[in-house]
Order: sequence, then structure tokens, then C-alpha cells
Amino acid sequence: MAHSSFTSSDKKNWRSRLHEIIFEADTPAGKAFDVLLIWSIIVSVATVILDSVAGISCVYGETLYAIEWFFTILFTIEYILRLLCVKRPARYAVSFFGLVDLLAVIPTYVSILIPGSQSLLTIRMLRLLRIFRVFKLAAYLGEAKIIMGALRASRRKISVFVLAVIIIVIIVGSVMYVIEGDKNGFSNIPTSIYWAIVTLTTVGYGDISPQTPLGKALAAVLMIMGYGIIAVPTGIVTAEFAQASREAVSTQACPACGAEGHDPNAVHCKYCGAHL
Amino acid sequence: MAHSSFTSSDKKNWRSRLHEIIFEADTPAGKAFDVLLIWSIIVSVATVILDSVAGISCVYGETLYAIEWFFTILFTIEYILRLLCVKRPARYAVSFFGLVDLLAVIPTYVSILIPGSQSLLTIRMLRLLRIFRVFKLAAYLGEAKIIMGALRASRRKISVFVLAVIIIVIIVGSVMYVIEGDKNGFSNIPTSIYWAIVTLTTVGYGDISPQTPLGKALAAVLMIMGYGIIAVPTGIVTAEFAQASREAVSTQACPACGAEGHDPNAVHCKYCGAHL
Amino acid sequence: MAHSSFTSSDKKNWRSRLHEIIFEADTPAGKAFDVLLIWSIIVSVATVILDSVAGISCVYGETLYAIEWFFTILFTIEYILRLLCVKRPARYAVSFFGLVDLLAVIPTYVSILIPGSQSLLTIRMLRLLRIFRVFKLAAYLGEAKIIMGALRASRRKISVFVLAVIIIVIIVGSVMYVIEGDKNGFSNIPTSIYWAIVTLTTVGYGDISPQTPLGKALAAVLMIMGYGIIAVPTGIVTAEFAQASREAVSTQACPACGAEGHDPNAVHCKYCGAHL
Amino acid sequence: MAHSSFTSSDKKNWRSRLHEIIFEADTPAGKAFDVLLIWSIIVSVATVILDSVAGISCVYGETLYAIEWFFTILFTIEYILRLLCVKRPARYAVSFFGLVDLLAVIPTYVSILIPGSQSLLTIRMLRLLRIFRVFKLAAYLGEAKIIMGALRASRRKISVFVLAVIIIVIIVGSVMYVIEGDKNGFSNIPTSIYWAIVTLTTVGYGDISPQTPLGKALAAVLMIMGYGIIAVPTGIVTAEFAQASREAVSTQACPACGAEGHDPNAVHCKYCGAHL
Repeated sequence: MAHSSFTSSDKKNWRSRLHEIIFEADTPAGKAFDVLLIWSIIVSVATVILDSVAGISCVYGETLYAIEWFFTILFTIEYILRLLCVKRPARYAVSFFGLVDLLAVIPTYVSILIPGSQSLLTIRMLRLLRIFRVFKLAAYLGEAKIIMGALRASRRKISVFVLAVIIIVIIVGSVMYVIEGDKNGFSNIPTSIYWAIVTLTTVGYGDISPQTPLGKALAAVLMIMGYGIIAVPTGIVTAEFAQASREAVSTQACPACGAEGHDPNAVHCKYCGAHL
Repeated sequence: MAHSSFTSSDKKNWRSRLHEIIFEADTPAGKAFDVLLIWSIIVSVATVILDSVAGISCVYGETLYAIEWFFTILFTIEYILRLLCVKRPARYAVSFFGLVDLLAVIPTYVSILIPGSQSLLTIRMLRLLRIFRVFKLAAYLGEAKIIMGALRASRRKISVFVLAVIIIVIIVGSVMYVIEGDKNGFSNIPTSIYWAIVTLTTVGYGDISPQTPLGKALAAVLMIMGYGIIAVPTGIVTAEFAQASREAVSTQACPACGAEGHDPNAVHCKYCGAHL
Repeated sequence: MAHSSFTSSDKKNWRSRLHEIIFEADTPAGKAFDVLLIWSIIVSVATVILDSVAGISCVYGETLYAIEWFFTILFTIEYILRLLCVKRPARYAVSFFGLVDLLAVIPTYVSILIPGSQSLLTIRMLRLLRIFRVFKLAAYLGEAKIIMGALRASRRKISVFVLAVIIIVIIVGSVMYVIEGDKNGFSNIPTSIYWAIVTLTTVGYGDISPQTPLGKALAAVLMIMGYGIIAVPTGIVTAEFAQASREAVSTQACPACGAEGHDPNAVHCKYCGAHL
Repeated sequence: MAHSSFTSSDKKNWRSRLHEIIFEADTPAGKAFDVLLIWSIIVSVATVILDSVAGISCVYGETLYAIEWFFTILFTIEYILRLLCVKRPARYAVSFFGLVDLLAVIPTYVSILIPGSQSLLTIRMLRLLRIFRVFKLAAYLGEAKIIMGALRASRRKISVFVLAVIIIVIIVGSVMYVIEGDKNGFSNIPTSIYWAIVTLTTVGYGDISPQTPLGKALAAVLMIMGYGIIAVPTGIVTAEFAQASREAVSTQACPACGAEGHDPNAVHCKYCGAHL
């Protein structure tokens, strides 16, 4: 905060203190604010979900509507305060959490013009990702990092895989459109591609399903393909996890013989016996 | 048993003997009791299942009803005896098996007031978990421990994963509710979330399925996501299993300090440096 | 063959030669017989499959019926010859392939009494497992052995897993029967258990699906459970495969320092440099 | 190009330059051609997909038809040019990309005779596989090679697995045909086999589902089998990936003999024994 260039030290203090409360979770006030925020998010999302149920909405509609507006105004004030106390408002505004914070209040205002759009308020759930920061869940954060790391390390393999899947579903979808045609539910190529995705991922709604023998045969091939193909992303991610856990074991080298691969609790080199 | 503080040694012997029969499986009587108990559980659960089938119930209903009450009274007596002979009845009553033993008899009594609740008697199946103890299936117990251990070791990664899944299904469910709406079966947000879970897990009942092009496109993205995401828990658990089996490999103890857990390729003890 | 105790050397030769042709694949005659047999199996199974299609059956029914009887009589003669030329007919008759050979002809004879049972002739497919033996597909046989070995090594873990799955589906099935009841398709506990299996395995036919909010909530839990649980058998089998491939690497120990874990192509110990 | 035996150096230069533009991506002209080609493919496939949608087709049908013919003629000219400038036209014509290039134009011409066949133009998507070459996406190509390598290394295990799956679905399909019969939708054995594949792969459309208790029991067994069996290809591919990533770990070369492929913990070269 010492690097900030505000003219009024009074104003600076006010903003600095606000920053501490809103953005940090080290002080009691900051932690209390974050806990309150999390509960507000959960209650407001529950309100939106309950409001969509006809039976509940027609009885408690008024109350739920009031709660929704209450939280929206609260989150709007919070968003403005965040913009005020952060050092680089523009950078915060375009950051992931900045956008989520904005999107978390917009739907209520839009719902005045377009009724029903308030259902999109559930995007507030994304704000819960802050939960990790709040409770200093360092261990959980570490795990999340390992998962993200494994996914990032295999992003190229996954890109290749996704491209292959896209090519397969487009070609199989088109062929099925020619084989089955409109009368069997494959009314156009996008619908056929949708069917191919439903089948390849083994979801299998059954809203569209092949009726001709040739279509069934091709569908059977696609299913077995999908059944086997799932092994590819699983294999990729698993190998990354195994790699990550192996690397985590140790990177210490023996000072005497230079051997690596020692367990984290090793005191002596397992090859030459020298003290590590 | 020597530490117990009962006044009458006669009573103590009676309880001690009962404890041996009911809770242990080392003596012939104890083993016979346990084998009898397992068969009672299987027969009583089969009775409950058969009784729910209309065709069987209207013919053998009387007999099945009698068998059900017979086993319920038997298990009630057994439960009381367990309470009587155990040293700390309160602790047993709130333990996992104590609660299961209680829940295994309650539904029959409740069914006098609320007909149909006796179907819940199948919770007796959980008592079968004792099967491991009875037959001294140490090896199987070991395997169960490895599975539980692998799951426990990855519980944080799994928590992160489950939280991510919950956030995804809530947001996607809400968006689908806005896109598809009541007329296409997405009658409210909870129903839409249910649909999102059905789709993400690749179950795909088809009782609700998107009808609009936009809805189908979003569903396709969710399916491919679900198809790929399954790689994450699989990768986590597999890496843990691989880790566990690697650790289990070496059981060599150091001749100098007795430490275990050396790698198969270790030449010197990693703790004291002695030659293995 | 020298150990056989037949009185007539002439008869012995006849049986010995027959044995060579039927049971072995080293001689040209034996190989020709086996190739012929494989084609007979494929053609006869195709006949049975085609005969079940109404459109084909009403036109070519007579021909297909004749082919079916032709192959059945052929396989019956072959079965009798196998019994005659094998040294221990009783042992062959109760072996896996002996039973399959018998079951591969019975349905045609039974179909005289019970029409329609000839469809079971497709069990002849199991005879194709001999294909590995015929073409000396040693490498494939090795792979099959690795797969079977991995499955056998993890059979205890898989038993524990299957027992857990059975307990889950019985209890969840019963609870769903109480929650949903007959009016929503959960007509009895066996049907509910069937639904639980359909859901847990992520098959999801949709012929039965929960209608009540509580039922949907429980179904959602079961789905996520099934989605995650699949990681367990995958993890078990994968760890076994990894273990098997690691063990296959090498079991050679260095004569100088005793270190293990050398690659199959290693000439010198990677730790001390001694010649292996 | 120096090895070509064309008489006219002028013609050679023309062909050589054309080859550079069409087949290579090193020169600016070559790269521009390839980028243009990729956009042409994407636009033309999008045209075909949009043309199949009734609502779009009846409004913009004329335009889309014109675009389709434009690209077809363009790709035809390109195909002819490729044949002209390549050194061995016959070899190119029967190569994978040669066939794809040909199949990418044929459907439009065929659609004059057989309306509707132009949907098969989406096979042009396969031409996108060239994308890797164009942008010198060496890293991605490497990843694709690792995936292909892992699949190739496990092709025998996968063959054994696929054969087992085929035998299972044929036998289970036939048995279900006998159990359920025509009245429950299992109208013939091919349909029953299709159902078995739909169930084993956990797709589960629900267009055909067992109605009898015995059929449901067998279906339940098949589902649990399919649920567990998926562990086999996953295990195979994962083990291969792990193996591949382990092999990729060390890229250290021996200073004495230059051999590579040493383990990360190697101290001495495993071939010549020199200190690394």
C-alpha cells in the first residue's frame, strides 16, 4: 500500500482499510466479511432456485422477490466498493473474479426488461471459488493446483483428442443423416451431430435413435468407439497425475554419488549410504 | 475382561460368555452364531424383497409376513443381548454397527403405523459387512483397507472435484432453464439441475432432453465435458492405487535399525546408511 | 502318445492320427482342419443370426434350416470323434472346451421339442477362442494372459467392490421403492434394484425414472456415486497393468552391488557400472 | 527435386514451384495457400451442414447450392493440380490424403444423380488433419504421435478385448432374443445384439429394454459387466501412457558411448558402464 500515490492520506487510509476488509482474509474484520459474503451467496442462489419452482413461487413469490433485490443491491454496493478500493480498478474489472462479480448482479436488472433472466443469477456460484482463499484452505488449493497442473500439462494431448472427436462426430453425423434421414428423427446434420455426441459420450438419451439396420450397425460401431476412446483422456490425465505424484516424491540428489529419486524421509542415500 | 467392575462374578461370567459368542468369532459357538446370523440376514432381506412383488405377495403374503416378524423379533432380542453384554452399551449404541443393528429392526415396528415402511428393512444388508470379521477374511479386509486408503488419501482432490461438479451443474442447469423453459420439460431450476447431473454423469435417461438448437448445443458441450471430466476422479484414484501398490512392494527391514519401507532398488538403509 | 495303453497298435495309430488332426495345429492336416472348423463356426453362427430375421427367414428359411442341421450334424460327429481320440474322454467332456463343444450342438436337437431354442446356437462363438491356438498367436495369447493375470491379481479388490455395489443397489432400490412407489414405475423392490443398477452403471434406459423431487434428489446422489465409483475398478486394473509392465521390465540383479530394476537391454549396472 | 527426370526444365520449374505451394508450407506462398485451404474446408463444411437445415435451406438454398459447387470445383482443380505436380501421382492417389481429397469432391457430382448425397461432403473435415502440418504444430504432432504410439503398442491387448466384447454381445444378444422375444422389442438376433452393445457400452437409449424379470436380471449382469469391463481398455492405454511418459523422462546421453534412454536415477551408462 506504501507504493500508492494518493494525495490525501486520509482517503488512502479509508481505502486501505476497506481493501483489507474486502480483499483480504487475515484480519478478523476481513474474515467476518468473507464468511458473511459466502453465506449471502448461498442464500441468494437458493432464493433464485426456489423462486423457479411454481409451487413455492406462487406462495412465497413476494418474499423471494424482495430477498433477490436485497442481495442484488448488496452485491452491487460491494462491487462498487471493490472498484473504489482496488489500486487498479480497470484491471480488476476485466479479471475473472471482476467479471463474475459484475455478472452476478446484472441479471436482476435485466429481468426488469426481460422477465425470467434472473435465473442466470446462479452464476453467483462461481464467487464461491473464493472459498478457498477465505479459509486459507492451502491444502485444498494445493490439490486444486495439482489437478489444474495435470490438466494443463496434458492440454495439447487433450486438444488433439477433442479435434479427433469433433471430426468423428461431424462425419458420422452426416453419414447417419444420409442413412436414416428426416423420417427417423435425424432431421438435419446439426441434429445428427448432436445425436453422434449423445452416443459417443455414452449419454444415450434415446430421443433420437437409429431405426434402419445399417444405421444401427453404424451406431454400434460408434458406441464401441466411444466406449474405447474414453480410455484416451483417462490415460492422459492418469499418467500426468502419476507423474506429478512421482515428481513430488523427491528431487534431492545424493552429495556423494549423485543418485536421485530418494524418498522425502530419506536420511542416507539408498545406493551408497552417504548422509544426504 | 479382567478390568470390568461387576460385583457378581457369576453375572460377569454369563455376560463374558455371551460377549464371546455374539461379538467374537474365535470360538466354535461364536463362529456358529455368526454364520447363523449371516444366513438370517440374507433370508430376511430376501423375504422383504419377495414380499414387495405383487404376484408373490398375494399368494405367500401370510407366510412372508410371519417370517418377517420372526426375524425382526430375533434381531430385536439379539440387539438387546448385544446391549447387555457389551462393556460400554452407550458407545456401542452410537457406533456404526450399533446404529445399523437398531435400524435393522425399527421398520417392522414402524410398519404397524405406516404400512410399506418395512421395505426399508433391506438396510439389514449393511450388517453383512460383518462378514469380513466372521470368516477372518484378513486378505479381503486388507484389500478393502487399500481401497479405503486410496479414497481417503485422495479425499481432498475428490472434494475439489465434487465442488467443481456442483458449481457446473447449478450454472448449466439455470442456463438451460432459461433457454429451454417449462414447455420443453425444464419446468424449474431444480429439475434442470437434475437434468444436468443426468447428462454430466452420462446416465442420460431421456425423460427430459433439450429441444431447441441452442439447448442441444449447450447439452453437447456438457456431455463432452462430462465425458472428459470422468478422467479426473479416475486419474486421482488410479495414481493413489499405483502409489499404494508401489509402497507395498518392499517389505525389507534394515538389519541395523529395523526401519522398513525401503525401495526395491535400495542398497543402503535410507535412515541409518547401513548396508541392507 | 507312447504312454497310451491301447492293445491294438493299428487302432492306436488311427486314434493318434485323428488326435493330431483334431487337437493339434502343427501338421498341415491339423491346420487345415482348424481353419475349416473356424469358418464352419462363423458360417453356422451367421446362419442362426440371419434365420432370426423375419424378412430373411420367410424367403430363405428352408435353406437356412438345412444349413443349420448340416453344421449341427457335422459338429456332432466332430464332438464324438474328439471323445473317441482323446486319451481321457471324461476329463475332456467336463473341461471348458468340452462343455462348449457339447452346448454348441444341443440347441438344434432341443429345437425339435422347443421351437426357438436354436438361437442359443450362437454359443458356438465361444469355440472361436480356439482361434488363438490355431494360428499360434502366441503374442496375442501372451496379451490375453496379461489381461487375465491383471484381473486375477485384483480379484479380491474386485470382490470387495462388487459386494459394495450389491449392498448399495439393494438399499437404494428399497428406499426408492418406498419414495416413488408403484405409480411411478417402481412396482416392486426387484424392479427398483434393476433401476438402481441401470442408474449406477450410467446406462440409464429411461424406462423407469424418478418423478418425485425426493426421488430425483436420491437418483442424483446415486448417479454422482456411480460416476465416481467407476474410478475404483479402473484404478485397480490400471495399477495392476502398470505393475505387470513394470515387473516385465527386469528382475535381474547386479552381481557387484546387488541393485535391481535394470532395463532389459542394460549391459552394465546403472548404479555401480559393473558388467551384468 | 534434383532427382526428377523431366525433359523440359521449364516444365519442371513450373511443377516444382506448384509442388512447393501446394504440398509444402515453408514458403510464404505455400503457407498462404494452406491457410486459404483450411478456411475453404471449414466454410464449405459449414455450408453443407447449414444446407441440411430445412429452415435455412428454403431461404438461402440457392446461395448455399452455389457456394457448394464453387468449393467443389475449386477442390477438383486443386486435386488435379496435386496429381499433376506430385512426382508419383499413382502413389499419391492411393495414399490416405489422396483418397480423402478425392472423396471430398465426389459427393457433389454424385448428388446430380442421387439427391441428398452431398451431405457426405463433410468428409472434407478429414482434410483438416493437414492443419498440423501447416502451422508447424510440431509439439501437437508429437502429442498425436504419443497417443497413436500408445494405442499401437496396446493394439494386441485391444484386439483381444474387442474379440471378447464381440463374443459377449453375440451370445448375450441371442439369449435375450430367446428370453424376451419379438413382443418386447427384441425382434431378431441382430436387433438383440444391437441392444447388447447399447447396454454393454452404457449408452442405454431405452428404445429397446427388457420387460421380463429374467431379461432384467440378465441385463443387470451385462451392465455391471460393461461397467467393470471399461476398466480394461482404460487400464491398457493408461499403462502405455505411463510407460511412454517414463521413457520420455530421461534424455541424458552417455558421454562415453552416446547411448540414450537412461533412467533418471542411473549413475553409470547401462551399455558401456561409463560414469554419466
